Amino acid sequence: MSEKFGVAVIGYGGMGGWHVRKLQSMEEIRLCGVYDIDPARNAAAVEAGVHAYSSLEELLGDPQVRSVTIAIPNDQHKDMAIRAMGAGKHVVCEKPVALSTDEVVEMIKAAKANNVIFTVHQNRRWDEDYLTIKRIYDEGRLGRVFKIESRVHGSRGIPSDWRNQKAYGGGMVLDWGIHLLDQLLMMVKEPVVSVYADLDNVTNQEVDDGFKAIIHFAPKVAGDPPLSCHVEVGTSNFINLPRWYMLGENGSAVVEGWDLKGKIVMVSDWEKRDAVPVVTAAGLTKTMAPRTEETIQQFPLPEVQSDVRDFYRNLIEAAEGRAEQIVKHREILRSMKLMEAILLSGQSGEAVHWII
Amino acid sequence: MSEKFGVAVIGYGGMGGWHVRKLQSMEEIRLCGVYDIDPARNAAAVEAGVHAYSSLEELLGDPQVRSVTIAIPNDQHKDMAIRAMGAGKHVVCEKPVALSTDEVVEMIKAAKANNVIFTVHQNRRWDEDYLTIKRIYDEGRLGRVFKIESRVHGSRGIPSDWRNQKAYGGGMVLDWGIHLLDQLLMMVKEPVVSVYADLDNVTNQEVDDGFKAIIHFAPKVAGDPPLSCHVEVGTSNFINLPRWYMLGENGSAVVEGWDLKGKIVMVSDWEKRDAVPVVTAAGLTKTMAPRTEETIQQFPLPEVQSDVRDFYRNLIEAAEGRAEQIVKHREILRSMKLMEAILLSGQSGEAVHWII
Repeated sequence: MSEKFGVAVIGYGGMGGWHVRKLQSMEEIRLCGVYDIDPARNAAAVEAGVHAYSSLEELLGDPQVRSVTIAIPNDQHKDMAIRAMGAGKHVVCEKPVALSTDEVVEMIKAAKANNVIFTVHQNRRWDEDYLTIKRIYDEGRLGRVFKIESRVHGSRGIPSDWRNQKAYGGGMVLDWGIHLLDQLLMMVKEPVVSVYADLDNVTNQEVDDGFKAIIHFAPKVAGDPPLSCHVEVGTSNFINLPRWYMLGENGSAVVEGWDLKGKIVMVSDWEKRDAVPVVTAAGLTKTMAPRTEETIQQFPLPEVQSDVRDFYRNLIEAAEGRAEQIVKHREILRSMKLMEAILLSGQSGEAVHWII
Repeated sequence: MSEKFGVAVIGYGGMGGWHVRKLQSMEEIRLCGVYDIDPARNAAAVEAGVHAYSSLEELLGDPQVRSVTIAIPNDQHKDMAIRAMGAGKHVVCEKPVALSTDEVVEMIKAAKANNVIFTVHQNRRWDEDYLTIKRIYDEGRLGRVFKIESRVHGSRGIPSDWRNQKAYGGGMVLDWGIHLLDQLLMMVKEPVVSVYADLDNVTNQEVDDGFKAIIHFAPKVAGDPPLSCHVEVGTSNFINLPRWYMLGENGSAVVEGWDLKGKIVMVSDWEKRDAVPVVTAAGLTKTMAPRTEETIQQFPLPEVQSDVRDFYRNLIEAAEGRAEQIVKHREILRSMKLMEAILLSGQSGEAVHWII
């Protein structure tokens, strides 16, 4: 194996620590060290056996460091990324990459000017719940998909750290929304044509502590109706709805949660689609007559496996010109634009009809 | 007991038969007979031991008939109701009462001019799933409720009868939507301030075969955020999401389906609301850290009982001036207006900001 690829981590908080542990577990990578503006965090790094740089200048001046991973508050991402790229380092930025499309454009310009990689740690592209539903979607087994619903529900409220402050890029659209939106945009390739969103303010008035967005994509086949997607984050949900819910003309799929429980239910006999009226616990209904077993078939979810360290493996390949970076500039811009549309719709109460 | 209250049923299809059986089971009522324009259906009524009138004129001319129940295609409701009221009969109309607010206004005018009861058979006000969630809402035990979601999912597509034809008032907004919307409007007393809706066309292009509406109500307490409700009907859903899902500041409630399974989960220790980051199956998260058992409490759903025949009991009392009719003119108009807003939003792609 050739010389190891040197990486340093700026910011040694929750996600900084996560990166350190992942990087330490990779043979291809040499973890050069960390730097945090808080001396106590640097001390904690040293205690954990990790080198801590004495200053940002020292870190950026270390020729061993090929790439820096930025895990500091969202509002500081842009300046730090541009500074690191100016020092000739590749940059992996935590999500949300920035607070506006304008900031993202500046960061992309800096990457081009310095001829370095600039990418974002969209680690949830490797989540197995997402890869499971994406496989079902890609395989086309449900027939034309007309609805995709992606939800993450917690009940802790919005944490009382930077996440509840607007100046630091808080709020659930930017914090969790970016994951769900990036996943959706990786799955559905057509353009977004409209967005309508509801922002929640249950435990917090300054930023959204949850949201629900209805996103329409142009149809794959002209003349079909648009694909309607529903992306939702809740932080005051003491009962969770399923993580993924997908409807196609010939069947439905559900992934209940991160434990990957779920199922696929497909119609097996179209002739028996129409029903006779049935008396249910709630009265007579024809339309909602439950299906009988012989007209449907149930299948287990496909099994997928992933290794989020592939993100860093790709970084090395991209830095060496052997591959295109996985999280691309156009994708970073697009998910930022979609978040801006959601925030605008939620604040104005109007649908937004940008093509994204 | 005084003389029995005479009722005749116009239309002997699915719902006409339902009314006949309910009316036959009521001591207070004398089922005078039925009339259907299809002679085969009249013959079927006679076979079932029910008197069939030889003509509409004969039915409307029968002085024993105090009230008629109209269970014919939606597009004929208005003319038939006005004709029956002109003959001095009280009128119970099946839902959806009409195809537009203008038609409803004409019907209400006829009721006033003839001094008779005109009401709509909103039978699902007696559904026990609805009464269960309504009790939780009314009791206020979840704290301020900020989200109510009401869904009915089937997988039969839209039935290939009048329901898939626009001219007959087909489509799921008018067919099932009216039930869910009427229930919601009976539960939440504040004004509707905005509506955004998605209409589905999965198995049918002429009318919607499902829809999703986000409905904002003015807050109960000025300064609070609006209450956001979600009403959804699907007919190509092979996996169902819960019938009712309600979120309050202090807890959540779910009613899974018509079988009344479900639960209430409440926070028991607010101090422990904030969480430390947790490694889940899908990586590190602080916001979505699952709750520990000691910070929440689970409760069973309250038990409710209902008898849909109370609808007809109220009709008798209202006809005799002893009670106000349960399904009121203003409620009939309001739910029709809300359906119109949903259809307009779905067709235009824009939020509708009527006060309803």
